[in-house]
Amino acid sequence: MDFEAFFKSELGGLHEEGRYRVFADLERQQGQFPRATRYTEAGSHDVTVWCSNDYLGMGQNPSVIAAMKEAIDHCGAGAGGTRNISGTNHYHVLLEQELADLHGKESALIFTSGYISNWATLGTLGQKIPGLIIFSDALNHASMIEGIRYGRCEKVIWKHNDLKDLEAKLAAADPKAPKLIAFESVYSMDGDIAPIKEICDLADRFGAMTYLDEVHAVGMYGPRGGGVAEREGLMDRLTIIEGTLGKAFGVMGGYIAASNALCDFIRSFASGFIFTTALPPSLAAGAIASIRHLKSSQLERFAHQERVRRLRSMLDASGIPHMPNPSHIVPVMVGDAAKCKWISDILLDNFNIYVQPINYPTVPKKTERLRITPTPLHSDADLEHLVGALHQLWSRCALARAVA
Amino acid sequence: MDFEAFFKSELGGLHEEGRYRVFADLERQQGQFPRATRYTEAGSHDVTVWCSNDYLGMGQNPSVIAAMKEAIDHCGAGAGGTRNISGTNHYHVLLEQELADLHGKESALIFTSGYISNWATLGTLGQKIPGLIIFSDALNHASMIEGIRYGRCEKVIWKHNDLKDLEAKLAAADPKAPKLIAFESVYSMDGDIAPIKEICDLADRFGAMTYLDEVHAVGMYGPRGGGVAEREGLMDRLTIIEGTLGKAFGVMGGYIAASNALCDFIRSFASGFIFTTALPPSLAAGAIASIRHLKSSQLERFAHQERVRRLRSMLDASGIPHMPNPSHIVPVMVGDAAKCKWISDILLDNFNIYVQPINYPTVPKKTERLRITPTPLHSDADLEHLVGALHQLWSRCALARAVA
Repeated sequence: MDFEAFFKSELGGLHEEGRYRVFADLERQQGQFPRATRYTEAGSHDVTVWCSNDYLGMGQNPSVIAAMKEAIDHCGAGAGGTRNISGTNHYHVLLEQELADLHGKESALIFTSGYISNWATLGTLGQKIPGLIIFSDALNHASMIEGIRYGRCEKVIWKHNDLKDLEAKLAAADPKAPKLIAFESVYSMDGDIAPIKEICDLADRFGAMTYLDEVHAVGMYGPRGGGVAEREGLMDRLTIIEGTLGKAFGVMGGYIAASNALCDFIRSFASGFIFTTALPPSLAAGAIASIRHLKSSQLERFAHQERVRRLRSMLDASGIPHMPNPSHIVPVMVGDAAKCKWISDILLDNFNIYVQPINYPTVPKKTERLRITPTPLHSDADLEHLVGALHQLWSRCALARAVA
Repeated sequence: MDFEAFFKSELGGLHEEGRYRVFADLERQQGQFPRATRYTEAGSHDVTVWCSNDYLGMGQNPSVIAAMKEAIDHCGAGAGGTRNISGTNHYHVLLEQELADLHGKESALIFTSGYISNWATLGTLGQKIPGLIIFSDALNHASMIEGIRYGRCEKVIWKHNDLKDLEAKLAAADPKAPKLIAFESVYSMDGDIAPIKEICDLADRFGAMTYLDEVHAVGMYGPRGGGVAEREGLMDRLTIIEGTLGKAFGVMGGYIAASNALCDFIRSFASGFIFTTALPPSLAAGAIASIRHLKSSQLERFAHQERVRRLRSMLDASGIPHMPNPSHIVPVMVGDAAKCKWISDILLDNFNIYVQPINYPTVPKKTERLRITPTPLHSDADLEHLVGALHQLWSRCALARAVA
């Protein structure tokens, strides 16, 4: 077989479908977020980033920066091993305590990424609990889907955020089978929020564990940044809360918070936890500083929500259609893959505005969008520049306006 | 089902089998490597680490430390997104160029860990190349095994480092089927090295791709630290070289180096690459500094090899049995799980020497061992202290001496 020809042909298919991804080559400017330097073949220029998951700008928070540099001075670059073989650093221990406290759980366990925390935890539960059935929301993240597949247990997919469908599927399953309901709080692409309480009620009725992915919510919701479940007073009803250190907390890594026994079980059996180099001490130290900051400060959350509301009202005033949702994610709907890519390119090249187009397969065809994530650090001028540019392009591109 | 009781019972099983892992809680001392502070319930005390995979002490190399801190000052804490959605930092681009150059390949692609680079690459190739058969060495790492499973393609396991067996299995397979041979250069637990040239010869004969995991070799072998394949002048014969930034390079992250088309293919199709937050700029910057340093400096490699030889000769003089191998890994054989754990505990508590015991299932029963990894920064006094302690314990524990 001519492997090179095969790879090229598959890539050619992506080009033809308009799905080939070109990464923007950026240099974030610490202290100037959301500004970044964009490198192109022609040189470099400044852009304003409108699609970062550093939702609160904590990636440049002075306490986070200081903590990371201090940990590097103190402990060096890497962890030096897996958690079991010399790689557990005291910062990891403190971070796990901080996370357990954040979610009101007995324990927490950190992973190298949110992807791995979902994959390893769901996969290990699926493999080890005999007869487990995982009830998975239809719009769960790729890492959860891969984790459930990895678990090789029975999987039942329920309609997105549809309680009736979940109930019917729980009722149809063997009453004696152990069950787990896996879902997210804030869904990344539509920004909608799950009915957590009602799902927990169903879980209680059917004796199921609950697994809640809060990666797009931790740091941003709840009085201490514990996520939507904290805001709604529901943390104690969830068996497992999964989160990330790489979005609102501004660093990198993932985790679960749960009972001592559950965390110890995953710690002891999950291949993706055991056989990998631990997070560098500096990342753990930065995450601790970020979590602590957001446990006490409301400033970032208030300013974030205000910016989101302001962007929405400005879009409304310009007739730019955006998906309604109760979260901080503002999906501006284009509904055409080529136009979505074209708008994104023009924004970047002519307006120095960077919003990555979101096309199929990340979202369904005809729902292509610009997924905009305002942060507390986007100024009024930034907002006006963005909405002004969209206003121009909507006319030029003959896109439908939202009906007032 | 009582889930808590289930988790506790499974953990109880590990306790009974002596396989329950307790992580040493350490604080690495930058500038004093291999020294670390160990935290216990009783307080803290200094230990000498003898089992780190920071094989060359690059985790405290001044150029690495400076590069990481500079990147934090320049770009902040995290990458702020996935590679596709605002998370590609210019340091990533430079790091991929550096890695491609290191291995003499057209391209490289970085992942959040070596685990993920193996899992995502092998899994994606297995899933996407119709009819692919992966020929996997029997002692391949957990991440490769999981990746091959994830690929859901046909898998043929050949006897560890056994060319006859590999040849027979290649010959027995459908001549028209696309094939991939997956193996490691240095095997972590025994420290033995694969016959890379002969495996490449077989690959040529049967039209197979080759996938070489060099995680325990990059930085340490070859005139520029390109690994065993570089040392033996074989890099161009490998389709894919996989490596880590978390061991000899002292930071964190994994990568593959291969053709443009192959890297672009994995970049475009691998879920574990696409849907995860990118490495923080500081880690990429630290890795670049480390790779560049080890491309030109031979000091660390020479000192490393000298320390390994010296430890072996001192062990021989004391009759402490260690597995013979041509690499830098010194497995001191105990052959009994309880004694292995006991020796490790005594070394830590009474001698301030930290070597994690390696027991089943990481190695077969009756081959339990202390896996010792000397670094250029272990002094003569450190070596004497270690061998002296082992000498005492060997007598106390009535363990067999090596036959001179």
